[in-house]
Amino acid sequence: MPRYRLWIEYDGGPFAGWQRQGQLPSVQASLERAALALCGMPCEVIGAGRTDSGVHALGQCAHLDLPKSYVPAKIRDALNAFLRPDPVAVLHAEEVSADFHARFSAIARHYRYRIINRRSPLTLETNRAWRLARPLDLAAMREAAADLRGRHDFSTFRDSQCQADSPIRTLDRVEIHAEGNEIHLCFSARSFLHRQVRSMVGSLAEIGLGRWPPEALREALEARDRTRCGQVAPACGLYLIGVDYPDIVR
Amino acid sequence: MPRYRLWIEYDGGPFAGWQRQGQLPSVQASLERAALALCGMPCEVIGAGRTDSGVHALGQCAHLDLPKSYVPAKIRDALNAFLRPDPVAVLHAEEVSADFHARFSAIARHYRYRIINRRSPLTLETNRAWRLARPLDLAAMREAAADLRGRHDFSTFRDSQCQADSPIRTLDRVEIHAEGNEIHLCFSARSFLHRQVRSMVGSLAEIGLGRWPPEALREALEARDRTRCGQVAPACGLYLIGVDYPDIVR
Repeated sequence: MPRYRLWIEYDGGPFAGWQRQGQLPSVQASLERAALALCGMPCEVIGAGRTDSGVHALGQCAHLDLPKSYVPAKIRDALNAFLRPDPVAVLHAEEVSADFHARFSAIARHYRYRIINRRSPLTLETNRAWRLARPLDLAAMREAAADLRGRHDFSTFRDSQCQADSPIRTLDRVEIHAEGNEIHLCFSARSFLHRQVRSMVGSLAEIGLGRWPPEALREALEARDRTRCGQVAPACGLYLIGVDYPDIVR
Repeated sequence: MPRYRLWIEYDGGPFAGWQRQGQLPSVQASLERAALALCGMPCEVIGAGRTDSGVHALGQCAHLDLPKSYVPAKIRDALNAFLRPDPVAVLHAEEVSADFHARFSAIARHYRYRIINRRSPLTLETNRAWRLARPLDLAAMREAAADLRGRHDFSTFRDSQCQADSPIRTLDRVEIHAEGNEIHLCFSARSFLHRQVRSMVGSLAEIGLGRWPPEALREALEARDRTRCGQVAPACGLYLIGVDYPDIVR
C-alpha cells in the first residue's frame, strides 16, 4: 500500500481537536471520512501534532496508506472535495516511503501564537487571535522568554492531563515579533508537552502585563510545579505552522 | 452638540452593507443603536464610504454628534460595549470641529482587495479573501492595471444601480502586491463609483487567468459600456482600509 504525506490547514474552532474522539467532530475524523470516500476503504490518518480543541493549523502534517497508487494532486483535490464543508484543506500531497511516519519521523514542530494588543474588541480576527487590551511590555517578555530556551523540565508548563513519559523538553526557539499591535510568539522544538505553548504564552503575558516581575517566569520554570503556571492562553491564538522531517527542514 | 470622528473596523459578512436599510442588519444601524444606548438620544452616524453587503473595513471613518461632551476614549469603550456581539469595533474616537463631515470632507479613500491564489479551498480565510484556483499572471495584471490609473469615464466598471451623477473618477493608485500566494490589489481615489473596485478586480482577474488578452481591459474601459465588464469580484475580498482628510493624509 503506497503511503502519502499530506500538508494540512484548518480552522480549529469547530473541532474537539485533531484527534478522533468518539462522535465529537475532529480534524482526523474529517480527513478519514474524506479518505474513505476517496478509496472506498477505511484509512487511518496519522498526524504530526495532536492539536487541542480550537487550535488552528497552517502546516499540520499527516500520513495515510491508500490501497492503490494515485497521482498526488488527485489525492489533494479529491480529499478537498470530500472534506467540504468542513474547514480543513489539504494543501499538498506527496508519496513517501513506507517507513515515513508523520508523528515519529518529525524532528521539529513549529508553533506561532498570535496576540492582538489593543483596547477594541476583535471583529475580523475573532477566534483567530488572543486580544489583550492592556499594553504589553515586550522587552520584559523577550527577556523572560530567553529563560525558556534550551533543555528544561517543563512540569510547570504542562497540563495535568499530559501523558508524556517525561516533562523534559528542549525548546530550540522562542521569539517574539511585533508589527503594530500584532504580536507573534514563535516556538520550535522536537516535541512539546500537552498545552505547553499555551501555558508558556499565558505566563509570558503575566510578565507583559506587569502582573509578574520579569524573574517570575524563571522561578516558575525552576519550581517544576504546575500550580506556578500563569493563565493558559486561549486556544484560538495558537497555530501549528510547520513540521520538519529529515527531508524537509525549515 | 460636540462632533466626534470614529475609526471603525468590521466584518462585513453578516451585514446588508454599511447603510441603514429598513430592518436589515447594517453597520450604521449597529452603531446608531450603540450611540443611542450611550447618550439616550437617537444619533445619526455618517460614514465616509457606503460599503456593500459583505465588504469589510479596517479603517472606515464616521462622525456623529452627541448631546454632550464625553472623553473620546469613553465613547470608544462605551460604543464597543454596546456593539457587542456585532462584529463592529470602534478603534479610535476623537473630537472634531463642527464643519467636519465624514463623507464630504474625505479627500481620498483606500481599498484593498485580497486574492488567495491557490488550488486548495480556504479554511481560516473563508469570507476574508477571494480564492482563485488557477495561477494568475501578475505581470499581465500589473500591465493592464496601469491603464486604469488617472482620470477616466469608468462606466464599464460601475454597477447599473450606481447613483453617482458622473461616471468620471480619478484613480490615483492601483498597485498589485504579492507575497507567496496572497495577492493584494490596492486602489486609492477621492471617491469610487458603486462596485467600481470589485468590477475592476474581476476584470483584472480575467486578464490574470488568461481569459482576456492584456489589452482587453483598456478596450473595456474605453468602451464605457457596463456589458464589457468582466465578472464582479466577490464582496468578501474587499476591505476599506482607510480614508484621508485634510488633517490626515496617508
